[in-house]
Amino acid sequence: MQPTIDVVALGNALVDVLSYEDDAFVNAVGIERGAMTMVDLERSDEIYAAMGPGTEISGGSAANTVAGVAGFGGRACFVGKVRDDQLGRVFRHDLRSIGVSFDTPAAADGLPTGRCLVVVTPDAQRTMSTYLGIAPDIRPEDVDAETITSAAVTYLEGYLWDRPEAKAAIVKASEIARGAGRRVAFTLSDPFCVDRHRDEFWDLVGTHVDILFANDVEVRALTEADDFDEALQAVRGRCDIAVLTRSEHGSVVVAGDEVHVVAAHPVEAVVDTTGAGDLYAAGFLYGVTHGHDLHTCARLGGAAAAEVIGHLGARPVTPLRAFAAEILGDGG
Amino acid sequence: MQPTIDVVALGNALVDVLSYEDDAFVNAVGIERGAMTMVDLERSDEIYAAMGPGTEISGGSAANTVAGVAGFGGRACFVGKVRDDQLGRVFRHDLRSIGVSFDTPAAADGLPTGRCLVVVTPDAQRTMSTYLGIAPDIRPEDVDAETITSAAVTYLEGYLWDRPEAKAAIVKASEIARGAGRRVAFTLSDPFCVDRHRDEFWDLVGTHVDILFANDVEVRALTEADDFDEALQAVRGRCDIAVLTRSEHGSVVVAGDEVHVVAAHPVEAVVDTTGAGDLYAAGFLYGVTHGHDLHTCARLGGAAAAEVIGHLGARPVTPLRAFAAEILGDGG
Repeated sequence: MQPTIDVVALGNALVDVLSYEDDAFVNAVGIERGAMTMVDLERSDEIYAAMGPGTEISGGSAANTVAGVAGFGGRACFVGKVRDDQLGRVFRHDLRSIGVSFDTPAAADGLPTGRCLVVVTPDAQRTMSTYLGIAPDIRPEDVDAETITSAAVTYLEGYLWDRPEAKAAIVKASEIARGAGRRVAFTLSDPFCVDRHRDEFWDLVGTHVDILFANDVEVRALTEADDFDEALQAVRGRCDIAVLTRSEHGSVVVAGDEVHVVAAHPVEAVVDTTGAGDLYAAGFLYGVTHGHDLHTCARLGGAAAAEVIGHLGARPVTPLRAFAAEILGDGG
Repeated sequence: MQPTIDVVALGNALVDVLSYEDDAFVNAVGIERGAMTMVDLERSDEIYAAMGPGTEISGGSAANTVAGVAGFGGRACFVGKVRDDQLGRVFRHDLRSIGVSFDTPAAADGLPTGRCLVVVTPDAQRTMSTYLGIAPDIRPEDVDAETITSAAVTYLEGYLWDRPEAKAAIVKASEIARGAGRRVAFTLSDPFCVDRHRDEFWDLVGTHVDILFANDVEVRALTEADDFDEALQAVRGRCDIAVLTRSEHGSVVVAGDEVHVVAAHPVEAVVDTTGAGDLYAAGFLYGVTHGHDLHTCARLGGAAAAEVIGHLGARPVTPLRAFAAEILGDGG
């Protein structure tokens, strides 16, 4: 049976609250520069109180990725948890408005919709403090077998691995997908996330994952390698395709004997790097699900990443189809 | 007694939800291009459902103005009504984070915090659909005499005039201010607002207002004049200072025999005109409350307007002090 969805993603449903701050702010507030740190509500409120005026834009790593897939014209679906509150409605509206299906019911009680405080410094680096709220409350029963088997790729975010129920949901989704002959893609999400779950992630990648996404730091954390090339060799063959991103140095795609080293897409001015990895995955998966070769997939990923770092926020603001047309020729 | 506040403003507390759309969208949804239209919750939800992904940024006309005054380094205060909901907390955070005092208690029940759906078209024009929610529920008891008498200027927005209680609050604030020898500034807000209240606005301007802000269209609506110059002559002398803005044609300030015709501040690229008038008022009032001549006040207004139309959202994202330093010389 032909898939009717290109990519279904499971991830944390988060609204980003972005503000521009200087380096002194990062030091004064005591947040880890360039990283994503999980915080509780009290700490989230403390950081928010110190931040300047915010811009609220829907985010969440895997949600950004399916937003990007839809931006390319792909068929995308999201599974994640919001509360029936204002941020939850904002999150749902923003995904649906770009054509992403999102039907996981909002929780009627419990914690509020999660939010990620994103401090953007003058070098366009983002430092994130995430209060997850209800987001990781994804359970195996939220994973609908029909949706997963309808999707060419099921995309899972490492961030979800902290909670047993969400972990069980990931395993369930990946087993259904592979059982139906579909592919599973997994992102390591964050080096600290990898540190917390190194052995389990290594097992998961070897047993449940077809396409692995990681950046330079994450793949070295996973493999405990001293440099990028050592990490690349370690991960090679662990899954069908390993996609390793290296910011301005482009990306490397390894699939068995096939290796592609692809330059970064040119960017006029880097404004905010939030979402770069998420959008790279979007372009790559759009390519994979539309029958393109791995070099082309990497170029599509790079183009989508370039778009999203050119403005504030982690979701594309210009139609990604235009990038696809440029890279693929007029056929789109 | 010297004022301890430069500008206190009474206005609608609104969070803006902005999205980029094409002209076909404006026609299909049936909203009045370039205007601000009041809508009920049902219509607001209908337009929101049709809009693309949103960016939420605090707004509200008079609130934008005090945000701008604070951006120049002025002492500013806001009086307005939010609910104790997520949008209400966002609104309060954003004002306080830039140093604007905002102590009007949040309502514990009633309608939700108001929001303004802003559709930005490729020509950078904004079309606004406002669901006021709890915003206009400002009552005379929300106006604190001590705050008003502490402020050099009390700034009032015409939008509030639709509700009897809010109208009474405006009249109370202006009477306290003038009784204490302070100045009252008033913005006509919107041509449709002027149409609804022409006679009352004309009376108010003649009896309670020292500084009137209006754009070309609004001042012609107020005076029912055929052209700008006729409107200018009609409004001249009706209050101490009339400040008339004309988009890219700059502004005209009339104060008795004094008339200044000031060119617009150069802008690299106009992205979103939301907040241009609000920020013009901010620069002008910062100038007035810091002893600058009317020509300089108009230049400060123009500079602040230029900043805000260069990016998405109606609040400044760069420090306005830099503009002031440029215009005023190193003294700042």
